[in-house]
Order: sequence, then C-alpha cells, then structure tokens
Amino acid sequence: MMTPTVREVCAEVLGRATPSPKERERVVTLAEELENRVERAAKEAGVRAEVRVEGSVAKDTWLSGEPDIDIFIRVPTTMPPTAFRTTLLEVARKATEGYRRVERFAEHPYLEAVTDSIRVNIVPCYQTKPGEWISATDRTPFHTDYVKPRLDEALRGEIRLLKRFMKGTMTYGAEIKVGGFSGYLCELLVLSNDSFLNVLRVFADWGERRAIDYEGYYRGREAEAKKIFEEPLIVVDPVDRGRNAASAVRRERLDEFISAARAFLSRPSLTFFYPPETKALPTERLADAVKKRGSALVFVRFGRVKAVPDILWGQLYKTQRSLRKMIQRHGFGVIRDRAWSDEGNVNMLIFELEQRFLTPVRKHLGPPIGKRAECERFLQKHVASPNTVSGPRVEAGRWVVETRRRCVDVVDLLYERLRDGGRGAGVAELISKVIPNTLEVRVNEDISELYSASHEFAGFLTEYLEGRPKWLRETYA
Amino acid sequence: MMTPTVREVCAEVLGRATPSPKERERVVTLAEELENRVERAAKEAGVRAEVRVEGSVAKDTWLSGEPDIDIFIRVPTTMPPTAFRTTLLEVARKATEGYRRVERFAEHPYLEAVTDSIRVNIVPCYQTKPGEWISATDRTPFHTDYVKPRLDEALRGEIRLLKRFMKGTMTYGAEIKVGGFSGYLCELLVLSNDSFLNVLRVFADWGERRAIDYEGYYRGREAEAKKIFEEPLIVVDPVDRGRNAASAVRRERLDEFISAARAFLSRPSLTFFYPPETKALPTERLADAVKKRGSALVFVRFGRVKAVPDILWGQLYKTQRSLRKMIQRHGFGVIRDRAWSDEGNVNMLIFELEQRFLTPVRKHLGPPIGKRAECERFLQKHVASPNTVSGPRVEAGRWVVETRRRCVDVVDLLYERLRDGGRGAGVAELISKVIPNTLEVRVNEDISELYSASHEFAGFLTEYLEGRPKWLRETYA
Repeated sequence: MMTPTVREVCAEVLGRATPSPKERERVVTLAEELENRVERAAKEAGVRAEVRVEGSVAKDTWLSGEPDIDIFIRVPTTMPPTAFRTTLLEVARKATEGYRRVERFAEHPYLEAVTDSIRVNIVPCYQTKPGEWISATDRTPFHTDYVKPRLDEALRGEIRLLKRFMKGTMTYGAEIKVGGFSGYLCELLVLSNDSFLNVLRVFADWGERRAIDYEGYYRGREAEAKKIFEEPLIVVDPVDRGRNAASAVRRERLDEFISAARAFLSRPSLTFFYPPETKALPTERLADAVKKRGSALVFVRFGRVKAVPDILWGQLYKTQRSLRKMIQRHGFGVIRDRAWSDEGNVNMLIFELEQRFLTPVRKHLGPPIGKRAECERFLQKHVASPNTVSGPRVEAGRWVVETRRRCVDVVDLLYERLRDGGRGAGVAELISKVIPNTLEVRVNEDISELYSASHEFAGFLTEYLEGRPKWLRETYA
Repeated sequence: MMTPTVREVCAEVLGRATPSPKERERVVTLAEELENRVERAAKEAGVRAEVRVEGSVAKDTWLSGEPDIDIFIRVPTTMPPTAFRTTLLEVARKATEGYRRVERFAEHPYLEAVTDSIRVNIVPCYQTKPGEWISATDRTPFHTDYVKPRLDEALRGEIRLLKRFMKGTMTYGAEIKVGGFSGYLCELLVLSNDSFLNVLRVFADWGERRAIDYEGYYRGREAEAKKIFEEPLIVVDPVDRGRNAASAVRRERLDEFISAARAFLSRPSLTFFYPPETKALPTERLADAVKKRGSALVFVRFGRVKAVPDILWGQLYKTQRSLRKMIQRHGFGVIRDRAWSDEGNVNMLIFELEQRFLTPVRKHLGPPIGKRAECERFLQKHVASPNTVSGPRVEAGRWVVETRRRCVDVVDLLYERLRDGGRGAGVAELISKVIPNTLEVRVNEDISELYSASHEFAGFLTEYLEGRPKWLRETYA
C-alpha cells in the first residue's frame, strides 16, 4: 500500500466529517424546534429573553455524526442571580419535557438533554455589553457573531479538518479532564492561519512561547501580552482582549498537538483523524503483562464524588499531584501517574512505582560540619536512637546516618496517610469526604476484577500500558 | 562513675604515653647503635655520607610502646640518581643484616627493618640547600633541626597528647591509606597553638578554610596562601614556604578531627585516646545482621597487587571511585562504599547498595519538544524498538520512554564490566592486571568464609556495620 499524500488524507477526512445535506437539515430542524420550545416556555414563565442557537451548529462547523446543539437563553442584566439560577433552569426543563436530562452546575447552571441521540445544551446567559461580562457564558453569543460572518464553505471545511485532527489525537476539548483545544479556539486558529495545514505548520515549528492575536490588539506589544497571560498557549480572544481563548490548554496537550502536527506533515495518515479503537488486553493476560513490566502499578480507588465533571476532574488532578509528591517524599520512585474516573461510582488514581517495597534502611543527611550546634543536636538525636542502623559518621562534609524506615510498603503508607481522608496529605476536599468509607488500594493484577467488569477501564489500562499516542503506533512502527 | 575532667584525662594519657627513662634509654641506645652501623657500612662502601637519627626519636616526641626509629643517610647532591637508588640501599641492607627486612619503593626507595619489635626505617636523602630539594625526603633533616630546639618537656607532652588523640580517633597518619595528620604536622600544630587543648579548641571552632602559618610567610596575604594551596587544611611548612605540611590531610579526616575535638571538649573521656578494641560479630550472626539491615552489601574481591602500600591504596581508592560512579550510572543507589586490603593476598572494594536488583523497566528522558530534529530521531529509535516497554509519550515538555534495562543485577553488571580488567570502567592500571584472573563478586553473607578466616576483616566489617567513630559509642550513647 502506498503512503497517501497530505492532500489525499485531507480530502478523505473532509468527505467523512462534513455533514450531508440530509443530516444537516435534520439537525437544523431539531435546533429550530428546540429554539421555539424554549422561547415558548420563557414566554409562559413571563421571562423576557432572547433565545438563540449558538456554537458549532450555529456556525455550521460541527462534525458529521456528532452534533452538539447549544440553545442560549439570553436575559437582561437586570435579572437577579437567584432568578437566573432557578427560573431559567425551570424554563429549560419545561422545554425539554420527555427528554433524558441532566442538570449541570459547575460555576454555571445549565441543562443537558439528549434526543434522537443528539445532545442538547440549554444554557442561560446575560445580554451584556462586551467586556461587562457577568456570567461565564455571556461571551458565547459574541463569539458566534464574530466567527459566523468571517467563514465560507472552504474555511468551514478547514475547521472541520482541525477539529477532527484534534479529536483523533486526543487534544480536543477545553474541559478540565482534557485541558485541550475548544471548538472556538479551532475556529480562531484557522481564521488566523487560513487553513488546517497552515495551523499544523505553525505548531510544528513552535519555538518559544508565542501569542496569536488575530485582531492585533497587542501589535507591537507582544512581550506585554506574554506577561499578561501566563498559560503555555496564548490566543487573544477577538471579542475580549483581556481573555486568552486558549487558557484551558495545558502544556501536555499543546506538546502533543505540536508532536502530532509534525508527525502528520511527514507521515500523513488517516490514523491521526480516525484512530483505531483500542482492543483491551484479555483479562487473563493482564497479570502476565504487568509482571513482565516489573514495576508496581498501585491503584488508589474510591467511590462516587458528588460533583459535576469539571469539579470532579479538578479534584482528581489536585489529589493526584499531592499524593505523587507525598509518595516521592517517602522515597518511592514514581515512573508515571494518572487519574481515571467513570464519572460515576468508580474513581481511581494510578501510581506506577519502581517498586512497591523500599529498602528498610535509609541514608539520612545531617548538618554540615561547619554548623556546630546543629551537629551536636544531630548526634544527641541519632547515636542512641533505636532507629539508627549505622552511623552517624562524617561523609562529604556532613554528618550522615542510616536509619530504619518507618514505612517500606507503599500500600501501608497510603492507607496510613489516607485513613482520615488525607487532607494532611493534600487530598482535595470533596475526595477526602468519600475516602474514609470507600478507599481501596490495589497493586498490579489485584485490579483484574474491575478490569474484567469495566470495558472502559480495561481500554484505559491497555492504553496506559502501551503509553503512547495512538498515531505513533502506525506511523513510526 | 563520675565523668572525668579534661585535665584529669590529659594527665592520665600523659602518664601512659610518655616513655619511661628505661624505655627511652633502650630506644636511644638502639638508635645510636644503628646510626653507627649505617655509618660504618657507608664508609665500607666508599660513600661520603652524613648519617643522622631523624623523626620522633630524634625530637623525643614518640609515644611509649610505639617508637619508630628513622635513620637518614644524607649524601651530597653530586651523587647520581642510579647510585642513590642502588648503593645506598646496599648500605642499608648491610647495616641491618640479621634483621627482618622489607625494601620499600614508593616514589622513594628505603628499607624497613624490625628488631626487638621496634620498627627501623633507613632512608636515603640528599644534602640540599632549603628549597633546592631533589628527593622527597630531603626536607626531613630540616624539619628535625627546626622543631627540636623549639621544644621543651612540656611541649613534648602536648605533642604526645595530640598524637595519641589522633591515633585514638583514627585521624593519624599521612599515608595514602589514611589521609590524616603526620607527626611533623602534630608538632607544628602544637607549636602554633601552645598546647594540645588549644589545638582542639581551634579545630572545634573551625569555620571557613584557614591557613596556619607559624613563620608568618604569608602575613597579610592569607587569601593568596589559600589560592596557592588547594587542600582542605593548610599549614605552611616553616622550612619551605611553598609546601603545605598538611597536604596529605583529606577532607574526611579533617572533619572527623574537628568532630572529635568538639566531642572531647564537651564530653572528656579516655576513649578518644585509647578506644576499646572492636569485638567482631560472631560469624553465625553475620547473616542475620546483614539481613536485618535490608540493603545489599556487594564485595568486589581480587588478589595480590604488586605495589607498596601507598601505591596500592591509591589504586584502590581510584578504582573505588570509578566503580561507584559506574554503578550509580546504571541506576543503583549506593549508600556507602569502602576499600579494604590486608596489603597482601586479599583486596576488596565494598559497595553497599539499596538493592542488588533494579526494576526491569527504566524511564528514559528524551529531547525537549522544542528540538524538532532530535524528537524525530528519538521517535524513530524507540517506537519500534524491542526494548521499549511503554511510550514514547510527552511528559513535562519532553519525549520520554520506558525501556527494558539491559542489566538488572549488580553482580552481572560487575562481572560484565570487569571481565577484561575494567580499564573502560575506570579500574586503576595495576588492579586491572590482577582482576581477570582473581575477581570474585560476593553479596551479603556470601562473604562469611573470608569473615571467619580473617580476624582483621571480621573486625573491619563489624566496624563498617556499626559505621560510627568509636568515640561516639560511649560518649553520646
């Protein structure tokens, strides 16, 4: 089989990702119908509101097979926050009666509904002047109004290519879980660089930290922009010069996007857009795979945390960082660590360690010989201590001593530090509440029960063990 | 039992360390007799030479029970080096006929003989002007001439206290094996500070690196002296302003002396001067002691190296440093390492490791994302490699990969790297010659055969396991 060219791959992807007229009609009809229902419900509730379709459906930049319909209820700034949080949700509930629904609150209340396997978000916002934002979603209608008139059919295609590429390389999505690129950010990147391939070229050549500033708000003051925004990627929001439209992008996702862009340009393949689904390793081969690896996979599992996904993942990541540092401080070598959640009953932090057990003896560095009083205290403490194994002695200018470790098994360490919820070990608040009653620490193949029960977890762990972006599999192998 | 005062301890030590009139007479008589025999032998060989007693016997600063008689054959600078190296040794041989003798060559040839359990060194040197030194021992007669007239009975006592203190705290001896304080250095320190206790006080308060300069050669230019001499302790030689009389003192011995001085001043005890002999752990308890410790004691043993002690120990220490670094580079955690030798058939390097076996998987850091070409090479190398366990993936701004270690057992590593003599691993030349035929690597209690066979080694290993200066045992316990 001959390697396809970049153009050939893009043409193929465009064909797959662009909705057919029929699909488009179905989605647009559904969006309009929902718009009407929400409008009616608002009127019945006596709410003065502008109801609008926003997001990728409004801009016609959604991907075939995966539309997300966003309906915004835009109300005057005079509506008090309490009414905003209650009355408007009531309106949304009314408009989606009979749908499968979840009410979501992060900073902002909204309602998610599913109909005909299409996800619909009904989101309240205030009709403010630019820059006088009250709620987190007040900018969205401005984003729509900014992008929509600047697009034509060709640019919409370029945006679809970029979105599909980011989805395929796992860098798409501004939610905390992912920390990647939002749809709006994709649109701005294509507007700034004219085409999908130009976006890839710009990122493939990424050198030092740079600001992309389509409206030129910081023209001649790029250094200043880099000071104002601290995130790894800066894309100045055209509707708000004080906002970084790429603020959600974490360093890891940026680096992965850069790497994927380079790889695609030199080794074009459909894999970047449509990676094959991971086939989970059969449960009976898990123990063997882990054993061959030789490290210790430590699974810290706990139960349901009452929080919307963004809050949940924020708490998981914070706890992951704290526990990683705590484990390292106790002398364990951490190879890698990850968080996993089904956003339901199972939450998990995974720490891959060089080994589960540490050497019982530990070399402890004391004060430099120059510090006389500290040396005296060190000797008084360690010479007669029952924990002293060897020493104290002088080595490289300081007193040192070998002492017996209090804790040589990471499993004991974790149970000990987390028993009370682990606030002292840096566990995030909501997680610390569920830990005392639900904590389980498992090592290596002791996780196989969950592995065989959860297809999703099995896929995740298989990918973890492989430990590489999917596109690397075929393109460099 | 009441703690004795510093004065009481010093008085007791002085009583023990000062030779009785009878002992002194015996030694002086023997020294004079030897002087005469060497003079006669020189005359018979037709050598014009001044024969003199030097060292601690000449200066009456030797310790009771351990005299060392140094007889110097001082010849004109006109004698050619070949005659110096052969004829004078012939003279020494002749003069000590019937004695047990060893000829020693380091940089300098000399003859060591033992009679009546008293060690005698017969040492050739040139009669040069100060500063025009030809051989390493030409300064010695000047040292004697400098020190002798400056001493009285009281000062000789102070010197004996200091020497005994250094012997008891294992900091005495300028030979490479020890890297400590020479007898001449002890004398200069007492001359500079008037008394033993003042020497201790000066070192106990040791702050930044300082130059002791009794003759004031560098008065007002102390910073210059500290630049000229690079060693941790600087004591300008009164007979040679270009020489540091403390150049043999290694950092470790200096620090140990400082620490012992502080401890003695606050907790006076005879232990500092006459430590109890170490009672070796019974062989049958060795395995248990090592196991409880939990670390891995790795013994690298090899056979006789043809070299005088100073050369042997230089080669041992150099090899020790190189192998320590090599072992660390391969990922093993080294807790401590030591060299041991009976200066005969058994030489040994000991590495105490956190563990004998490493985790089979190793995290390998690749290039930063910013270096595009290097990233490409890294991916090409690792994606399809059979040694790759996990990855490559992006982490903290760079590509990383987990690879399988080539060598997980330190014993295999050592045999592999030393098979050919180990020059590539930094083994010193003379040692690399004996390694291929005599190398043995043992771990933990596998050393018990040698342990039970060698009283000396058993004592050494017992002290190693205790790992603290002897004076710490009683004074801080």
